[in-house]
Amino acid sequence: MSKPFGPVPPPFAAQTGMLTIGGQTADTWVAAHGSPLFVYDPAIVAQKIAAFRAAFPGIDLHYAIKANPFAPLLAAIAPLVDGLDVASAGELAKAQAVKPAATISFAGPGKRDAELEAAIIAGATLNVESEGEARRALAIGTRVGRTPQLAIRVNPDIELKGSGMKMGGRPSPFGVDSERAAGLVRAIVGAGAEWRGFHIFAGSQALDTEALVETQAATLALAERLSDEAGHVPPLVNLGGGFGIPYFPGDVPVAIDRIGAALAERIAASPLTASGAGYAIELGRWLVGECGVYLTRIVDRKESRGETFLVVDGGMHHQLAASGNFGTVVRRNYPVAIAHRLSEPASDAVSVVGCLCTPLDRLADRVALPPADVGDIIAIFLAGAYGATASPAAFLGHPAPAEVLATAS
Amino acid sequence: MSKPFGPVPPPFAAQTGMLTIGGQTADTWVAAHGSPLFVYDPAIVAQKIAAFRAAFPGIDLHYAIKANPFAPLLAAIAPLVDGLDVASAGELAKAQAVKPAATISFAGPGKRDAELEAAIIAGATLNVESEGEARRALAIGTRVGRTPQLAIRVNPDIELKGSGMKMGGRPSPFGVDSERAAGLVRAIVGAGAEWRGFHIFAGSQALDTEALVETQAATLALAERLSDEAGHVPPLVNLGGGFGIPYFPGDVPVAIDRIGAALAERIAASPLTASGAGYAIELGRWLVGECGVYLTRIVDRKESRGETFLVVDGGMHHQLAASGNFGTVVRRNYPVAIAHRLSEPASDAVSVVGCLCTPLDRLADRVALPPADVGDIIAIFLAGAYGATASPAAFLGHPAPAEVLATAS
Repeated sequence: MSKPFGPVPPPFAAQTGMLTIGGQTADTWVAAHGSPLFVYDPAIVAQKIAAFRAAFPGIDLHYAIKANPFAPLLAAIAPLVDGLDVASAGELAKAQAVKPAATISFAGPGKRDAELEAAIIAGATLNVESEGEARRALAIGTRVGRTPQLAIRVNPDIELKGSGMKMGGRPSPFGVDSERAAGLVRAIVGAGAEWRGFHIFAGSQALDTEALVETQAATLALAERLSDEAGHVPPLVNLGGGFGIPYFPGDVPVAIDRIGAALAERIAASPLTASGAGYAIELGRWLVGECGVYLTRIVDRKESRGETFLVVDGGMHHQLAASGNFGTVVRRNYPVAIAHRLSEPASDAVSVVGCLCTPLDRLADRVALPPADVGDIIAIFLAGAYGATASPAAFLGHPAPAEVLATAS
Repeated sequence: MSKPFGPVPPPFAAQTGMLTIGGQTADTWVAAHGSPLFVYDPAIVAQKIAAFRAAFPGIDLHYAIKANPFAPLLAAIAPLVDGLDVASAGELAKAQAVKPAATISFAGPGKRDAELEAAIIAGATLNVESEGEARRALAIGTRVGRTPQLAIRVNPDIELKGSGMKMGGRPSPFGVDSERAAGLVRAIVGAGAEWRGFHIFAGSQALDTEALVETQAATLALAERLSDEAGHVPPLVNLGGGFGIPYFPGDVPVAIDRIGAALAERIAASPLTASGAGYAIELGRWLVGECGVYLTRIVDRKESRGETFLVVDGGMHHQLAASGNFGTVVRRNYPVAIAHRLSEPASDAVSVVGCLCTPLDRLADRVALPPADVGDIIAIFLAGAYGATASPAAFLGHPAPAEVLATAS
């Protein structure tokens, strides 16, 4: 009895024979860069961005680089988006290498003074997470003789339904409670900082289109209310993101055209628009999740008490999320394939386990796959977001995975 | 309403005022090495080893370095134990730096050919995980002109009750099913390898003393049976480890004296003992878990809808296990303290959250602590095992944590 795995993402689902990424076969990538290996295809990201542009005309697109900060990928994405969002001084430096600081925003609840200072000197926008952080930023601005660019991250009193991670309507380390946000706008403006607007996140990894439509409408209504209360029009309303991608059986993609149409209608009717406010959507996982494939070679094929294990040279130290140990309550299977047997029938029930000495290191649990043996390459899809950097790479002393951008040669 | 946290480990529980680690205050450590910081006190490990020696006379003690491979700590432990267990070529190199290869064993289900070769050339013992791996090791031995030192890791048909991670009695990527182990012994001996014995793990992080006693007895019985079937006496029976440490409310330490006494009795009666077999217990977490404290400074104190958050400059990128995202189903609180207020009453209900942009990054959920504010140091205990290396350090681009050995200056 095998368990299902999630849908192979569209750019790969129709392939037959040997898996191809960016025009080269999986075997070729591994021969050139070793195994285990993350391959990212920037053409897939470009397609997602084009789809976004078609669905959301006039809305800025920001890339949250936490999803994948691999420098060559970042360099490929930067010219195609309007802004980058960063979460640390380390990410700020990476973003500044490819994009003007004026297009970069810095969010995160625990910014140190040194991080605030780096952002203020660079001229990046700080998404302020608390009144205390605003005070520290203003003091640093005075000390270094620069005007801080401050947006206010709002902890909304709304919640994104069906979201993988809920962030709104409750006590939160993220943002200023909406009931206190207008007061902070006035304080920031009064202190002489440049107020850059609101940053309102209600959740992430949501697949329910109608819930996203409702949440965006509620987010806009909240921005309108806060602007009224504050007596200032936000230069930019960052509506957050939250668009999920299908990982698991039964997951369906969000219908971005529907979301874009509803948002356009809502924005056209908003008094903020008439007053000159701009709008942005910030996406990470939705942009890059599907562009990456984790390739790992089978080291051992073993039978144990009726179960077949394909033991690979990679594992949860590179792809923690696929093992189910990163924010998931129930372990489910990511989409997976034997790289050179895409067209063959799934004749074997196997578990794909990593090379770590722990039962947690299971990349696919009792899935049906074509036959595979030592030396073959396993492909784990949806490795483009929260993979290489969101995994405990140093665990058990194995080498770091290689990462490569699949560019046309 | 606050939630409980686990028991502060014995070396720190009786302290008052300012937390001291290895004779220096937490503030002093942070002033010297920065925040966030892992401090490991080797004297605490030495006490654990001494307690083991008193409880298990005549039994070898091996340290599983996966629990904490920090080089200065490893150098401090190596002279005090009889062997080191490693899980990768990277760990093998670290172990060889401090201990003769003949005392090192290498376990792990996905050993690559290059790893097998490194171990065979060094003269380390390979804990063979499958028939296929045994064949590869024998072929490599022939090719490089060395006799492989092979122990057989057995997937037992017994299970450690109350174990945090069950590894026995079921299909497993780890070890050779016990029903096939004797055949593999004969094959290995027949092929001219040096057979080093059995390696039998039944689980880990077990706190139930009587379950550990029973499991050790069953493990020994299994070794006796397999030796009979194989017609060879194992030079060493590695009984595994599995001794847990208390992390959470209600957890109690294992009574190692009771386990040692029962094992001594069982071993004295074993025909293997009369035939010259030796015995080893392999421990990781139990030896080092309590020696480490993770120190992290409060960057922000914020109130949100009735909840108080202490936002620190560390987080789950350094101490993933404390956030509940590493192999735990239900999130529970690790022991925690405000480092300079050990004696003060717990007057505040607060959540300690890390600096990452994700709701997963919660180090303590609604615990009762003395008052604390920006600049104060939070101590998260039980950071000696599966902390720094078992966490996604690169996530969000924050700096790596510092690590320091608390040696008498």
